[in-house]
Amino acid sequence: MNRKTIKELKEIVGAGHLVTAREDLMCYSYDGTGMEYMPSAVVFPGSASEVCRIMEIAGRERFPVIPRGAGTGMTGGALAVEGGLVMAMSRLDRILEIDAENQVAVVEPGVITGRFQETVRRQGLFYPPDPASQAFCTMGGNVAECSGGPSAVKYGVTRDYVLGLEVVLPSGKLIRTGVRTAKGVVGYDLTRLFIGSEGTLGIVTKIIVRLLALPTSTRTYLVLTDSLRQATELVAEILKSGILPKTLEYMDQTALQVVNEHLPLSLPENTRALLLVEVDGDRGSTEEQGSRLLALLADRKTYPGILATRQAAGESEAAELWKARRSISPATFRLRPHKISEDVVVPKTAIPTLVAFTEKLARELDLVILTFGHAGDGNIHVNIMADRGDAAEWQRAGKAKKLLFEQVIALSGTLSGEHGIGITKAPYLSLEIEEESLELMRKIKRVFDPDNILNPGKIFTTAQEKP
Amino acid sequence: MNRKTIKELKEIVGAGHLVTAREDLMCYSYDGTGMEYMPSAVVFPGSASEVCRIMEIAGRERFPVIPRGAGTGMTGGALAVEGGLVMAMSRLDRILEIDAENQVAVVEPGVITGRFQETVRRQGLFYPPDPASQAFCTMGGNVAECSGGPSAVKYGVTRDYVLGLEVVLPSGKLIRTGVRTAKGVVGYDLTRLFIGSEGTLGIVTKIIVRLLALPTSTRTYLVLTDSLRQATELVAEILKSGILPKTLEYMDQTALQVVNEHLPLSLPENTRALLLVEVDGDRGSTEEQGSRLLALLADRKTYPGILATRQAAGESEAAELWKARRSISPATFRLRPHKISEDVVVPKTAIPTLVAFTEKLARELDLVILTFGHAGDGNIHVNIMADRGDAAEWQRAGKAKKLLFEQVIALSGTLSGEHGIGITKAPYLSLEIEEESLELMRKIKRVFDPDNILNPGKIFTTAQEKP
Repeated sequence: MNRKTIKELKEIVGAGHLVTAREDLMCYSYDGTGMEYMPSAVVFPGSASEVCRIMEIAGRERFPVIPRGAGTGMTGGALAVEGGLVMAMSRLDRILEIDAENQVAVVEPGVITGRFQETVRRQGLFYPPDPASQAFCTMGGNVAECSGGPSAVKYGVTRDYVLGLEVVLPSGKLIRTGVRTAKGVVGYDLTRLFIGSEGTLGIVTKIIVRLLALPTSTRTYLVLTDSLRQATELVAEILKSGILPKTLEYMDQTALQVVNEHLPLSLPENTRALLLVEVDGDRGSTEEQGSRLLALLADRKTYPGILATRQAAGESEAAELWKARRSISPATFRLRPHKISEDVVVPKTAIPTLVAFTEKLARELDLVILTFGHAGDGNIHVNIMADRGDAAEWQRAGKAKKLLFEQVIALSGTLSGEHGIGITKAPYLSLEIEEESLELMRKIKRVFDPDNILNPGKIFTTAQEKP
Repeated sequence: MNRKTIKELKEIVGAGHLVTAREDLMCYSYDGTGMEYMPSAVVFPGSASEVCRIMEIAGRERFPVIPRGAGTGMTGGALAVEGGLVMAMSRLDRILEIDAENQVAVVEPGVITGRFQETVRRQGLFYPPDPASQAFCTMGGNVAECSGGPSAVKYGVTRDYVLGLEVVLPSGKLIRTGVRTAKGVVGYDLTRLFIGSEGTLGIVTKIIVRLLALPTSTRTYLVLTDSLRQATELVAEILKSGILPKTLEYMDQTALQVVNEHLPLSLPENTRALLLVEVDGDRGSTEEQGSRLLALLADRKTYPGILATRQAAGESEAAELWKARRSISPATFRLRPHKISEDVVVPKTAIPTLVAFTEKLARELDLVILTFGHAGDGNIHVNIMADRGDAAEWQRAGKAKKLLFEQVIALSGTLSGEHGIGITKAPYLSLEIEEESLELMRKIKRVFDPDNILNPGKIFTTAQEKP
């Protein structure tokens, strides 16, 4: 990007909305992975038509454009791995419409997910996708990664709520996909092709989502066990009993330790795992589900590992428990300065096997590995802690990651439930996806982006992690 | 297709599994539209590898292949509009696996949807998509069209239940897409690209679906009104009250007349519409939803058009009501020998406007038009009845269809909620989808099927309806 191009871009967005100073670029050089790649410039478009004009210039000059939400991604999707122009969507942050009668909303990509949820909640409406980073992450980033969170076990992920999109193609042309109605099957499903494409096919400039009525009742339950196996085995049992919890999360002992100060309860000394079960719906339903859950858990003969079971004492305790749950990921850095964080998914019945495997890996490779996450849908967060400065340890961590992925595939699982591939998983993509499918995907990429200017180096390449 | 090709195909599937006699071809020349196109041959593959080998020959000889389920489609997706080989998937009819613990099943495309639902129900499991043709239609056809049914208002459509697919590409290569876990975001979403692609991108040979626990309680309610507007206005009111019914269907007066003999009740003379509301869940929830519904409907001051409200007397009456509902479409032929059947969708609050518009169309164009369907999600079945032999009437029916589509788009709706585009809506596709998006779709088609041998003439062309 030469000086003339920078000038041209500034003319589009206004001089104040493009930065090139090193200290400014720094802020947009990293993401949730902790890796860093410096872009040449960062632009802050103020409208879809500005995005179109920027893409026209990028196409002419052939520089990479990397769309960026809040940079909370866990696989490097927002990193400028080949340099170029980071396009920060933070100015496109308007909630354009909340149509309460039809339970539909239209937002710009820079809207913070948590803010959107709070806004619709005040109108008695509910937008379920709830990534742990919801206080910071954006709706556009959620679409790019098809984000999910604890409530996915009952409510699904971003894909299940997006009805339609407005997207600027790499060519600079703007299209609208999908519908704003509950159903729609007209033409190929471009909407869901964009969702989870990690910003490689187009830049989302508008998102139409469906909303639900806000459930009127929620109950949160805590289960402590003296073994991780007991906790993970309970997951399938709870779901089999006909309860469909809003969330069914677990934390292993190490996860509990790192968030100990946030926990609103003191744990018995032999606690090895905690299950967090939330049921929601109308009052009749949460009452029935709650009783059914307590009845199941009362059977200590079948489940001898249960140490304690109780309902959270009111909303405030439930809120504290959730705060603790969401703080695990950042809090892990107390253990080791870096980590490899994976969000693998296995069938629910395979969770105990997977978790036992990670414990074995930790022992055999002399690593700290903690697991926690969305047990209800088999989406387990495996955090392999290590110090990048310690070459031997970092190498063992990399080995653990590869062995983990192989085990996940052997268990009929998938490498990513919500974080995507980005660059950190790209070298492992072929473990899961056969060459013929990859070739189709690469051809689809070329249909949308023949010159490979949009977020190049993601998903399909084997860009190495920097040490 | 010359004799040598036929011989070669017979060697693949066995002589008994390929037919060319006119009387045999006849059975595979039509579908739910009533239109007819004779294929050159019909083949019945017995395995995915046979499908692969057939596609290799089709690619070499460049003849069209038209995958076909039960032929219940409403837009001509299974018709051999350019001749060629119909590939009937009826022999691939095995339920390969029901993994009750993980709530996942694997089926072949020829499995009849209703049979599958019944089979999983016996294990306490629930597969929600319920097209009216569920007693005949197949899982493969449902994937091709992204079928839905009455329960979509609460449970969504086929897209929301398919986790992964095995697909034979037009090249004859076999790929696997998606996952068999609750979540998965690895690579582009090929699974949902195939879903709803109407058999134009690949031939599905295996389907992995997620299942739910079977709800333990269901309650069905009937509401009779003295005006269609009152009935359609109630739809948004019911949903706004926080009730999320499993189904929220309506029938207008003409629909009620054609199914009168199936109705388990006699209607007051001034009945103009019927609403059928079903709530499901656990007992606590259906009790609460039921009371809330009855309380809402008891307010005759706000809703003066309500003539009667009552709960269906047990399962048998509910079953009879549903039988009546499902028999509307075939029963309409009592009114006129042919029809144009559309499944447009509008925002829920626009239903009264749309229905009033169809009444106006019927008056002004001197046609019988009846409307019924999935009011809860705005998916209205508009049946324009006419006699193809009466050129003037048939022309007026065509005019009504075009005006209907224009009105639907003006109301922010979509041309199809579950039937797809096929050939009957292809001429109107550009009313909804802009050229830039259509061009992307055509390019995607070329990625998958560069020689256009798989189900050619569908979605993107403007093949005319035969008179």
